[in-house]
Amino acid sequence: MLATMIYGEHDVRLEEVPDPVLSTGGDAIVRVLAACVCGSDLWPYRGITPTTAPRRIGHEFVGIVEETGPDVQNVRVGDFVIAPFYDCDNTCINCRNGVSTSCLNGASWGAEDPFGAFADGGQGERVRVPHADGTLVSTPSQPEPSQVPGLLALADVMGTGHHAAVSAGVTTGSTVVVVGDGAVGLCAVLASRRLGASRIVAMSRHADRQELARHFGATDIVEERGDAGVERIREMFDGIGADCVLECVGTKESMDQAIRSTRPGGIVGYVGVPNGGAELPIRQLFGRNVGVNGGVAPVRGYIPELLPEVLSGAIDPGRVFDLELPLAEVSEAYAAMDERRAVKVLLRP
Amino acid sequence: MLATMIYGEHDVRLEEVPDPVLSTGGDAIVRVLAACVCGSDLWPYRGITPTTAPRRIGHEFVGIVEETGPDVQNVRVGDFVIAPFYDCDNTCINCRNGVSTSCLNGASWGAEDPFGAFADGGQGERVRVPHADGTLVSTPSQPEPSQVPGLLALADVMGTGHHAAVSAGVTTGSTVVVVGDGAVGLCAVLASRRLGASRIVAMSRHADRQELARHFGATDIVEERGDAGVERIREMFDGIGADCVLECVGTKESMDQAIRSTRPGGIVGYVGVPNGGAELPIRQLFGRNVGVNGGVAPVRGYIPELLPEVLSGAIDPGRVFDLELPLAEVSEAYAAMDERRAVKVLLRP
Repeated sequence: MLATMIYGEHDVRLEEVPDPVLSTGGDAIVRVLAACVCGSDLWPYRGITPTTAPRRIGHEFVGIVEETGPDVQNVRVGDFVIAPFYDCDNTCINCRNGVSTSCLNGASWGAEDPFGAFADGGQGERVRVPHADGTLVSTPSQPEPSQVPGLLALADVMGTGHHAAVSAGVTTGSTVVVVGDGAVGLCAVLASRRLGASRIVAMSRHADRQELARHFGATDIVEERGDAGVERIREMFDGIGADCVLECVGTKESMDQAIRSTRPGGIVGYVGVPNGGAELPIRQLFGRNVGVNGGVAPVRGYIPELLPEVLSGAIDPGRVFDLELPLAEVSEAYAAMDERRAVKVLLRP
Repeated sequence: MLATMIYGEHDVRLEEVPDPVLSTGGDAIVRVLAACVCGSDLWPYRGITPTTAPRRIGHEFVGIVEETGPDVQNVRVGDFVIAPFYDCDNTCINCRNGVSTSCLNGASWGAEDPFGAFADGGQGERVRVPHADGTLVSTPSQPEPSQVPGLLALADVMGTGHHAAVSAGVTTGSTVVVVGDGAVGLCAVLASRRLGASRIVAMSRHADRQELARHFGATDIVEERGDAGVERIREMFDGIGADCVLECVGTKESMDQAIRSTRPGGIVGYVGVPNGGAELPIRQLFGRNVGVNGGVAPVRGYIPELLPEVLSGAIDPGRVFDLELPLAEVSEAYAAMDERRAVKVLLRP
């Protein structure tokens, strides 16, 4: 089959790789219908995190179950399934605590699983899923083609934006600022609206992203950054800042922006993968009682809650996909996101 | 009157200073009945934070109102009052948000207030309180002498331990680890019991503090620190750590202990004044979804909730005072705490 490999900076290639084979009893083979490129895939693509050897890449996909191991019970051949961006058993204590990203038996896509077998990357034609029952969520029936982007968003960005909002304690009446206008930041706006925020500020300088942010529920747009951005936010919220600030980028600058935009006693909910070795300035947090909560989003647990709303059209996170390409053009997909010509690219094998 | 001055390392002196004078309309003069030395007072005493010029010190006291300005309404001459470790108006937006430590008009003891008048330090005979109505909480009647230590604990340590627990989200059934066996750590044990924790581990190597921790509700004692301490805690809690870890010291080592003792998805509630420039390791927090919440404790807001339980004897945080000295021996009070001969010293002017 064909799957995407990353070789190094600005070098991704679609290549012939071995077909996946069932091996652990509880696994399944999924034929990928749609996959996508993640903002975090751009770190190795940009060479910010080095690629020491060619490897599979991609961790967001939806598709059809083609085969299941003899121990699989919840998922059936022919099901349309959503895969979160990681594999988990959904039964261990961390999964039961709602932190399936810390599954004691979990695996990453494009790497060896705990059984010693390979779990394929998501940007390919097929993927072997180690814990099919724990990882995959079937839709109640076959979705319409128009619903696929929204369902694919549940694999990562929608659940991740939701995690930012949940981690920051967004609830009815909260004031919210979202730092980051990528797909996750935009989904964080949508999640905040859904959770009842009274006011949602999207920090963005791009007209197309501002428009989508407003569509998702942003009540205000702030274009300023740094000190000017902090000043604008404080002005908007009684001179002190917002209740909840959602950090959806992962740089030192964006975290600084988030912390300083939060009111005393407020919370930063963060989901941006930390880059650049930034540490959190504890004295600044301490003096103002600003909490920092979040991390790698346990999206598997959020799918059952969000799926019905995607299927009903109550939320349409699939709108973050503003470019569709065949898998054969995966290299162009990376380039388009790298050059910010696209918010998020959907790939069809 | 007499008040305590700090001159530098290991150098505190009781000296004659000007009597306080009412000046702002909303202020009061309190005659101090009991004061105490805080763990954070030891930072300048030990020279870890330098003292550039002699200054007043002390920020915990209870006493009797002797005079009030014409605008004071809630507090009356003759009232027994508890002062939190800071002055606040209790009406600004930060106070209304429960973060009175960030009061927009607040003041610190032993420093100039926003009106340009002086707010005395707590380790003295009298204190001018800038916002008497906002800051002071009167007891419903004159307390018994035996109740004074418990009431004094509400000025800082009990409210601060409570804030650690609240910030970490301690609730019915929570598993809790308390890092730090000083007065605040011991009060954090008591606060956790009060909030319904199912299991409370006190990390302590001192027999007397272990005993008090057990009296306050600790179910387990762990003497190990560092890697061994983390391993013991993880062993006790399903191999993953505790739901809530209360950091009540403020060093890099204690915060590291706290973070690594928290289960994925758990929260560190921290109240130890950060020292040594330690920053929070964001990648470690991110990967395990460990939140960090807390800061300088807004104890003023907690007094109304905790006061009735101190008066009824339901909680007895006054037990943290294991040495009483006359104010004249303030220098010995600092030395006893510095040398860990006492957990916390109560001073009587």
